[in-house]
Amino acid sequence: MVVVVEHNATEKNIEDIIKVLHDFGFDVHRSTGVNQTVLGAIGVKPDFDMRQIELLSGVAHVYRITEPYKLASRSFRNEKTIVDVGGVKIGGDDIVVMAGPCSVENEKQIFEIAQRVAKSGAKILRGGAFKPRTSPYAFQGLGEEGLKLMRRAADENGLKMITEAMDISQIELMEKYTDVIQVGARNMQNYNFLRELGKSTKPVMLKRGLSATFEEWLMSAEYILSGGNKNVMMCERGIRTFETATRNTMDISAIPVVHAKSHLPVVADPSHGIGIRDKVIPMARAAVAAGADAIIVEVHNDPDHAKSDGAQSLFPNQFEEMMKQIRLIAEAIGRKVA
Amino acid sequence: MVVVVEHNATEKNIEDIIKVLHDFGFDVHRSTGVNQTVLGAIGVKPDFDMRQIELLSGVAHVYRITEPYKLASRSFRNEKTIVDVGGVKIGGDDIVVMAGPCSVENEKQIFEIAQRVAKSGAKILRGGAFKPRTSPYAFQGLGEEGLKLMRRAADENGLKMITEAMDISQIELMEKYTDVIQVGARNMQNYNFLRELGKSTKPVMLKRGLSATFEEWLMSAEYILSGGNKNVMMCERGIRTFETATRNTMDISAIPVVHAKSHLPVVADPSHGIGIRDKVIPMARAAVAAGADAIIVEVHNDPDHAKSDGAQSLFPNQFEEMMKQIRLIAEAIGRKVA
Amino acid sequence: MVVVVEHNATEKNIEDIIKVLHDFGFDVHRSTGVNQTVLGAIGVKPDFDMRQIELLSGVAHVYRITEPYKLASRSFRNEKTIVDVGGVKIGGDDIVVMAGPCSVENEKQIFEIAQRVAKSGAKILRGGAFKPRTSPYAFQGLGEEGLKLMRRAADENGLKMITEAMDISQIELMEKYTDVIQVGARNMQNYNFLRELGKSTKPVMLKRGLSATFEEWLMSAEYILSGGNKNVMMCERGIRTFETATRNTMDISAIPVVHAKSHLPVVADPSHGIGIRDKVIPMARAAVAAGADAIIVEVHNDPDHAKSDGAQSLFPNQFEEMMKQIRLIAEAIGRKVA
Amino acid sequence: MVVVVEHNATEKNIEDIIKVLHDFGFDVHRSTGVNQTVLGAIGVKPDFDMRQIELLSGVAHVYRITEPYKLASRSFRNEKTIVDVGGVKIGGDDIVVMAGPCSVENEKQIFEIAQRVAKSGAKILRGGAFKPRTSPYAFQGLGEEGLKLMRRAADENGLKMITEAMDISQIELMEKYTDVIQVGARNMQNYNFLRELGKSTKPVMLKRGLSATFEEWLMSAEYILSGGNKNVMMCERGIRTFETATRNTMDISAIPVVHAKSHLPVVADPSHGIGIRDKVIPMARAAVAAGADAIIVEVHNDPDHAKSDGAQSLFPNQFEEMMKQIRLIAEAIGRKVA
Repeated sequence: MVVVVEHNATEKNIEDIIKVLHDFGFDVHRSTGVNQTVLGAIGVKPDFDMRQIELLSGVAHVYRITEPYKLASRSFRNEKTIVDVGGVKIGGDDIVVMAGPCSVENEKQIFEIAQRVAKSGAKILRGGAFKPRTSPYAFQGLGEEGLKLMRRAADENGLKMITEAMDISQIELMEKYTDVIQVGARNMQNYNFLRELGKSTKPVMLKRGLSATFEEWLMSAEYILSGGNKNVMMCERGIRTFETATRNTMDISAIPVVHAKSHLPVVADPSHGIGIRDKVIPMARAAVAAGADAIIVEVHNDPDHAKSDGAQSLFPNQFEEMMKQIRLIAEAIGRKVA
Repeated sequence: MVVVVEHNATEKNIEDIIKVLHDFGFDVHRSTGVNQTVLGAIGVKPDFDMRQIELLSGVAHVYRITEPYKLASRSFRNEKTIVDVGGVKIGGDDIVVMAGPCSVENEKQIFEIAQRVAKSGAKILRGGAFKPRTSPYAFQGLGEEGLKLMRRAADENGLKMITEAMDISQIELMEKYTDVIQVGARNMQNYNFLRELGKSTKPVMLKRGLSATFEEWLMSAEYILSGGNKNVMMCERGIRTFETATRNTMDISAIPVVHAKSHLPVVADPSHGIGIRDKVIPMARAAVAAGADAIIVEVHNDPDHAKSDGAQSLFPNQFEEMMKQIRLIAEAIGRKVA
Repeated sequence: MVVVVEHNATEKNIEDIIKVLHDFGFDVHRSTGVNQTVLGAIGVKPDFDMRQIELLSGVAHVYRITEPYKLASRSFRNEKTIVDVGGVKIGGDDIVVMAGPCSVENEKQIFEIAQRVAKSGAKILRGGAFKPRTSPYAFQGLGEEGLKLMRRAADENGLKMITEAMDISQIELMEKYTDVIQVGARNMQNYNFLRELGKSTKPVMLKRGLSATFEEWLMSAEYILSGGNKNVMMCERGIRTFETATRNTMDISAIPVVHAKSHLPVVADPSHGIGIRDKVIPMARAAVAAGADAIIVEVHNDPDHAKSDGAQSLFPNQFEEMMKQIRLIAEAIGRKVA
Repeated sequence: MVVVVEHNATEKNIEDIIKVLHDFGFDVHRSTGVNQTVLGAIGVKPDFDMRQIELLSGVAHVYRITEPYKLASRSFRNEKTIVDVGGVKIGGDDIVVMAGPCSVENEKQIFEIAQRVAKSGAKILRGGAFKPRTSPYAFQGLGEEGLKLMRRAADENGLKMITEAMDISQIELMEKYTDVIQVGARNMQNYNFLRELGKSTKPVMLKRGLSATFEEWLMSAEYILSGGNKNVMMCERGIRTFETATRNTMDISAIPVVHAKSHLPVVADPSHGIGIRDKVIPMARAAVAAGADAIIVEVHNDPDHAKSDGAQSLFPNQFEEMMKQIRLIAEAIGRKVA
């Protein structure tokens, strides 16, 4: 932590600040300039609230000089993490595609979609059995029945599966059925839940909160990592801005920036990122071009009658077209779609 | 729902749109203008995704014409809701003040603060026993021990108490100890949790999410109300903007706007809203002037050594000064501080 | 400027960084800790781009330790600036009210409004002769004719006047007619214009840009101040957020925060801040309660037929009511409305 | 315009609303449902403020049903506009690259850069002679001397040139020296300036404002188009969000969305969009993958000593690498770099 002293602070002020820092357990290095004195405080604890120092008389500014997360950082582990989902590897050279409906609705639907996306090259089936919905009156998912259907649909088509858990009480079921547990954007800072996921044996895909900074998102990953679960993937799915023409604003820069800060794989979700079916393909292309390790996308056999998110779901033939296009983009940057 | 047809749509397009609307169970009223045809679709279900219609050929725009929430709205109940917390009434003429530390740290601390805030006129003791912290390495609260201490500190000083529950598993404990359950900003859309709170006998104070719109915030209240719990209070605590000089940007307009849209009481939290101790008092004054039904504020007997949020906690004598000032403001608008 | 060195930087890295800093003309103070080395670079020029240092090998973080503005800061001048508008003093104990229509439309309108607002206690007449409109097809104002009408309406009712200049070419006209020149939100960073206003003899009211930080806003004030014009007022008029229920989100915290950072008076514009007539009064009360030095508000004799912004303009009797209410709030905080 | 009547409005209310609409010159079509009446108001003028109707008794909601811009819209002109810059065509199949320094600093610098970028395949030289700087103390550009140097550097290397005009007074100089006039983000709503550019013979590249919606941005294009200048290009350069790790948040979705709404070409500026040199290349790839018609990028022969924006400028060899990569991406989507 660096403490910049006000240029008109007295020697007494400075001594008092140093004393407080010592009381908090810091080692202090003083650098006295002609106009300004700067104190380096070494040994900051991750839970230290810097505002405690900002408020002292004579303090101009206080800066944290270490990232608040550790296990998620490149300085902890420089080599990229590869998450192995039953043989499907995310974070390596190959780009993995996860596809499927927003919600599992019935057997016919999920089997038909699973078959189609497998045929086009998806490796992991996505789909929701428990749905977090803004309205209490909306369709809330099929629950365990949905998980069973998805598991069978995935297995019969040689796919792995990913599905969302909404709270601690659902983790046990997840362990039984799914290959990857998804944490939704609105749960990104549900800390007790994250802590429990740290004890899970399943990889976790952590969606970015609607207004989360990269730092906060990585701090949430830290909760899972610090519990012992090393298989965490970060998923960019759009942030909230003032723009209303798109559902969210997909922050493509999250891909190169999080890759620079962290060793964890980055997944891109263009379906939620833009929220309009006919713009999903260009956004998927952009995500691959920017270096995403995986793409997760909504596909429905009959989007016009989907129980949720039909408007942003691709038709199966659009998905096939998307696969064709991102394969070319992947090659252009020296990777390939798995 | 209003469906505006593109001005160059064909009669065939229009007939197809009407057919789809009928299939979804809508009554359709057609209004044919010279340049533009407009369809009124009556009977929209709360879970209907309007994008299903937006994507049809020939559709220019689709507008929802009813609020997606019901029980929380002024059109459902015009008279203001008064939440009765063991005799302390929130939402009536009197303005209620809730005060206390961010976290319960130990017996001495909570008793000393409770005594001081009670003496200055607070009616409800605030404090956290379970703390949602951005960092997994930070102080996470005393748990049930904290609840017990708070209960005793409140009782001995003639105060009611409010504390935060972080997930479903903590509701049972809350029923045992607290008078009001607080839902934190990061949990505003933790829907399973909200649904369970709908079954609680305790009033709930629902904090606004960091980037929640008024509509989403009221939809979350709807989850609780629709479960049968009518005692919901809305708490404005600042939203996230690009400004970094303040911790959050406190949206004072939430007070008159939510009052116009809903019958539920509105509480203002200037401590989190601005995040800097010496600006808390002017923001508290502004909130009262704008019509807040209650103020919740952090007070600490020794903020410099608080385990969390010390920097935004008032000293007890500052709290007394705040009470003095908001009493004058309350009178100026024809109300009084309870 | 403080340069924090990466904890695994080599001695060679550190020497290279120091060399670059010397080349840029900085004095460098080195503080070598066990884990981390920190360099204090003294003598930063206001136009120095810190990213030049951030990119060097071995640099972890770079922090500016002085505010980028000088003349606008409390450290340059601690005593509050009082802007004297022909005897009406803004920034002292008394709160000044500026009121009038969005646009000057015709003689009858401006005279009628001027008389009404003067009678209710306004000291300064506001109104636009040149209107910055989002649409090229919208009413663009009466131009010089509008300025003449306003000047006469102000003079005959004992009022001073404020009006907006849109670019350099209009400054000359402004010098001739108005008492205060307003810079609109969309012009806050029109630097050539600001520079010219620095040479004006008229006080300038600088509106905050839709997404400007406090620092950028004060930097824009610095442009005017550095040109020699010391009479600058800052006007908070709402920022852009994701909320769509209000036109803007009025950032009441701007009032205490800018007062802490700067000696310049702060004006609040609740009409643009919230954009809905029936919420203007509570927001005006909140602004006064938070410490605003002046309130600027739109009033129209016939808002239903106003050529612009009718929906956020108060009726004259509402304005009278507002004056009554803010007088009480002003007294409650020990000030009075001028 | 569609006016939705409150469900408990009286027949008298509805008649009054219809009367007001007639008075404003609208044709009104009434659609009376069981629960709700909807009025279609035909003939809305572009400058009509819908809030005039929203405030009437009995009105629930009002919706505009036509885009507020015309000439910029796909419904006015469906075929894509191709802007011809002295033979370099932007908006057709080929992707054009514009490159050069942030500011022209001296002869040697601009000639060296021009030669390098031309060699790597750029078609247009970018560079600033008049610099809009946040600080009044920062380097403000070489002025006309800079324009002359740029013109010669462009000509001698077979390049066209683009440079920014900051206000009306500089347009005349621009006509003399440059091929394309750039409007900066902070000037996007400087309406008098836009109007004058509508009379220019030069193509205009209009940068998106820091917090502008797509609609506002297209409205600003409308100002230029309605003045008679048909050669307008839209440039996405990042918007402001709460994220601080990047300078701006580059909204890649602007590319497909503006293409869908408008016939105007879309240019992407990854240098300002992300603001960090080593992330510029992935963002340029993403922009091309999403369908950008042109890329504008900062390149400097000695970025460490650049007078402005050195930190986001590519080294010439990085630029060459970028060209190589985007050529491959362009091919992958069936286009090529010009």
